[in-house]
Amino acid sequence: MRTSNYLLSTLKETPSDAEVISHQLMLRAGMIRKLASGLYTWLPSGLKVLRKVEQIVREEMDKVGAIEVLMPVVQPADLWQESGRWEQFGPELLRIKDRHERPFLLGPTHEEVITELVRKEISSYKQLPINLYQVQTKFRDEVRPRFGVMRAREFTMKDAYSFHLTEACLESTYQKMHQAYCNIFDRLGLEYRPVLADTGSIGGSTSHEFHVLAESGEDAIVFSDSSEYAANIEKAEALAPQTERPAAQKSLAKVATPNKHTIEEVSNTLELSPNQVIKTLLVVGADEEGQESGVVALVLRGDHELNEVKAEKFPNVFSPLTFASDEAIKEAANCSAGSIGPINLSVPIIVDHSAAYLADFACGANEDGFHFTGVNWDRDIQGYQVADIRNVVEGDPSPCGNGVLNIKRGIEVGHIFQLGTKYSEAMKAGVLTETGKHETLTMGCYGIGVSRIVAAAIEQNHDKYGIKWPTAIAPFQVCILPMNMHKSHRIPDIANNLYQELQQAGCEVLFDDRKERPGVMFNDIELVGIPHVIVIGERNLDEGVVEYKNRQTGDKETIKIDEVVNFIQSKLTA
Amino acid sequence: MRTSNYLLSTLKETPSDAEVISHQLMLRAGMIRKLASGLYTWLPSGLKVLRKVEQIVREEMDKVGAIEVLMPVVQPADLWQESGRWEQFGPELLRIKDRHERPFLLGPTHEEVITELVRKEISSYKQLPINLYQVQTKFRDEVRPRFGVMRAREFTMKDAYSFHLTEACLESTYQKMHQAYCNIFDRLGLEYRPVLADTGSIGGSTSHEFHVLAESGEDAIVFSDSSEYAANIEKAEALAPQTERPAAQKSLAKVATPNKHTIEEVSNTLELSPNQVIKTLLVVGADEEGQESGVVALVLRGDHELNEVKAEKFPNVFSPLTFASDEAIKEAANCSAGSIGPINLSVPIIVDHSAAYLADFACGANEDGFHFTGVNWDRDIQGYQVADIRNVVEGDPSPCGNGVLNIKRGIEVGHIFQLGTKYSEAMKAGVLTETGKHETLTMGCYGIGVSRIVAAAIEQNHDKYGIKWPTAIAPFQVCILPMNMHKSHRIPDIANNLYQELQQAGCEVLFDDRKERPGVMFNDIELVGIPHVIVIGERNLDEGVVEYKNRQTGDKETIKIDEVVNFIQSKLTA
Repeated sequence: MRTSNYLLSTLKETPSDAEVISHQLMLRAGMIRKLASGLYTWLPSGLKVLRKVEQIVREEMDKVGAIEVLMPVVQPADLWQESGRWEQFGPELLRIKDRHERPFLLGPTHEEVITELVRKEISSYKQLPINLYQVQTKFRDEVRPRFGVMRAREFTMKDAYSFHLTEACLESTYQKMHQAYCNIFDRLGLEYRPVLADTGSIGGSTSHEFHVLAESGEDAIVFSDSSEYAANIEKAEALAPQTERPAAQKSLAKVATPNKHTIEEVSNTLELSPNQVIKTLLVVGADEEGQESGVVALVLRGDHELNEVKAEKFPNVFSPLTFASDEAIKEAANCSAGSIGPINLSVPIIVDHSAAYLADFACGANEDGFHFTGVNWDRDIQGYQVADIRNVVEGDPSPCGNGVLNIKRGIEVGHIFQLGTKYSEAMKAGVLTETGKHETLTMGCYGIGVSRIVAAAIEQNHDKYGIKWPTAIAPFQVCILPMNMHKSHRIPDIANNLYQELQQAGCEVLFDDRKERPGVMFNDIELVGIPHVIVIGERNLDEGVVEYKNRQTGDKETIKIDEVVNFIQSKLTA
Repeated sequence: MRTSNYLLSTLKETPSDAEVISHQLMLRAGMIRKLASGLYTWLPSGLKVLRKVEQIVREEMDKVGAIEVLMPVVQPADLWQESGRWEQFGPELLRIKDRHERPFLLGPTHEEVITELVRKEISSYKQLPINLYQVQTKFRDEVRPRFGVMRAREFTMKDAYSFHLTEACLESTYQKMHQAYCNIFDRLGLEYRPVLADTGSIGGSTSHEFHVLAESGEDAIVFSDSSEYAANIEKAEALAPQTERPAAQKSLAKVATPNKHTIEEVSNTLELSPNQVIKTLLVVGADEEGQESGVVALVLRGDHELNEVKAEKFPNVFSPLTFASDEAIKEAANCSAGSIGPINLSVPIIVDHSAAYLADFACGANEDGFHFTGVNWDRDIQGYQVADIRNVVEGDPSPCGNGVLNIKRGIEVGHIFQLGTKYSEAMKAGVLTETGKHETLTMGCYGIGVSRIVAAAIEQNHDKYGIKWPTAIAPFQVCILPMNMHKSHRIPDIANNLYQELQQAGCEVLFDDRKERPGVMFNDIELVGIPHVIVIGERNLDEGVVEYKNRQTGDKETIKIDEVVNFIQSKLTA
């Protein structure tokens, strides 16, 4: 492609509304343009990357026997009413009405549609297992779309759904899909981690997320330094201390802590380490039907953070986890949020293992401006439950039993689930078994955020000059950069020849034939992130060479003109 | 692909709600399934065809320098308000609101979005011309979706938009796109015709439609038997008679025609040929602002049909063309619809050339139960306008001046337009010219109904057994059909070997390895329409041969087993 026939559309300035680097670089490199909040047009070079990701995903799905279908973007409401998700889903489900006032929705996911298809098309165990996938536009009406295509409203996903007669068969396909996902990220050239994950609102039992590692990642992922164990921090178990709790040595005392609310303020005032102070959080409780009812106290060591996913799994805690209002706190503890403590607190109390292991610690006195010191479990506080409700921290022992945990940041780009019978039961999808019995199907589902991968790849691969594409998903593999071509007698011929030869050799080449200053062209190509750059300059031609620059490593070398094609081919097959 | 690992899903019965053959066959062959009215899931074999059509379209677009982008399905209303189409479009434009109650729509077409993009990205004449395209999901909320994917609500289109500084430049790109469309339909292996077309509500001047010829086509297309002239019947000009009108010979007489209303009844009663009787249609008129105002009379020869597209172009005719109500007819002509005539009718009268050429003809007397005979223009009727307002008929002289017109049925699958400045003016899309002047852009737009082509190809290529795919878009090129494989010692090895060899040779093979009766397998494969079929039977193996059957021609021949791969390859490259 010649730049003069292309829509490169690079920007010098960073658009002010782009917060994260991938969003900034996708705008600056002319990959996307915003049409409206959370809606983006993919410009030519962005679309090339998107299609390459799509194609790799498609090939790896085909390899493990998944079969491609295409389901509509617009879905009828009745299927969602059948599964129960029409009511369960919040306003991120965009509900619409057609001209006859019939209710539809823009699909954020396709479990209902595929289950409807399978219950009609699959009637015998002989047709199982079956694994169907699509690459399709999805819509989620995010309350605050942001980060460009990372959290857009309209986006491209690959979603696969497998159907089985037995759990064992599901497990087998799940493992194949896990491997296919690893193959996809390997081929994309991205550093990634599959991690154990919570199943959340999708439901089911086992689940893994695939994270592209990047410092800017929204998720914390933890892994053992000595084993394969890896999990989302939401899911990672914090083991209970293995030794006995120290014996109580101090006696209970109430001390004034005027205007000290945070753990830091209180521990400084009491001259204690934050890990000798506990924090007590009041959250909304739940009755037996899961409706809001009263409050529950959650107790953590001062230096630890609450894990909301773990906490909201307790039946007496309301889900989604909701902190108690100031009024409810006042009513339950007779104080404000910074002074709550478990002593004489007459609400259910759930204590994290690490907090329950402390002796002679400090806590709020349920009286504004006062804390207790020398507090000890059982002696001073009774009637509490001990459980894992905190986020793990670096150095915690790995729950697998081997090594200690490290934490990295990741961007979730894939999620696979052993769904079980959640949808097939609600929608009555079953088959006749070999013995003629009707059996409900067992399901798996497997998603990859195709458009999100593009942004995640940039978060992981960039520098201050722009994007550094892995070759597999670069918009072009090679760029020919002739310097001041229009002032030269020799350069145009050599550049045109090289362009044709590289194309004939099967390379995807961008030939920057613009009448621009060399600096402008260099900056654009570095910004766009083409991996292999051939610079043709008048001076080098005297020696019959051109300059090669590798965008990833920054390495430069001179190459004889007649060796360029072989050199580039060796780079592309490396 | 092995059938046992695939989702073939053929149906024996024709679904009762499928009216046209392509819809029936797409359902029976397991290509699509209905999710809701006008919404279809593409099953694996259907999707393969869709993707092949897409790919051919994409390649031909790339060849003429069009650049692929991808615009959102969901579009903000404000751009459509700017172009004026938010109000102009009827309820087939699905208007939706997001969670913040902001108005959006599901895109039926993308003129506004591309013009918004181009006015922001293109600022200089140096960047022109530019031709951008996408293959994207569209939505039109048809009042009565039908014929399967032929007239679905959600469908796949390729839409391209070109931008130019001059009309001459637009004309040049338009010609290139016209040729690209011809190349596409040639490669698809379809019999088609590009025809002159009306520009309709899209606007602009020159326009061509591309029709796949099929007896079931909704459109009539006309073409000269002696030249390249071809047009949609909506657009085809009916030339005025070239000779003088015969002189009046009869005198005006009023005759009773009790209960005779249709041309057939009246001409039989009066013992006249239908082409000696005229029909007078009253339609709603328009004032200078185009608002409904009064009625207008349209006069045609009895054997001719009104061309509504031609008629609604008259400024004093309301658009869209609307027939006058019984009350309005009564008021204007003092009779009911079957007895209207132009004599003493005090409304504007537009007379078709052929009707105006008649002498001594009959017409309604504006009195129920009476007609006039021996009527003559000018002597009996004054104050009328003569124009072309009828559909051409077979045998009419071609408007190009060469030959006479034939009529065939076609399915519109492509439409290209020289749009001019309709959108660029409304949306202020312009550039600076070489002399620093601001110039409004001139636009072309070019659509292909990708999913509709799949149905049109079937309408043109089928027999009573099923689909007869052109090889270029068949879901599989070759099918291996082993007869009673599970009862044979030799067949499984030979079938498996052939399967592997054909795949290695780059063929797309379906290996029907089901334990089904040969008849069931034959019927399924004929229904699905795979072009090249290799039948492996026990008896033929004694002679070291297999049977080859060509789905298109029905030809059969026996092929030596070790020559099958070469034979098939020669068929595929033929």
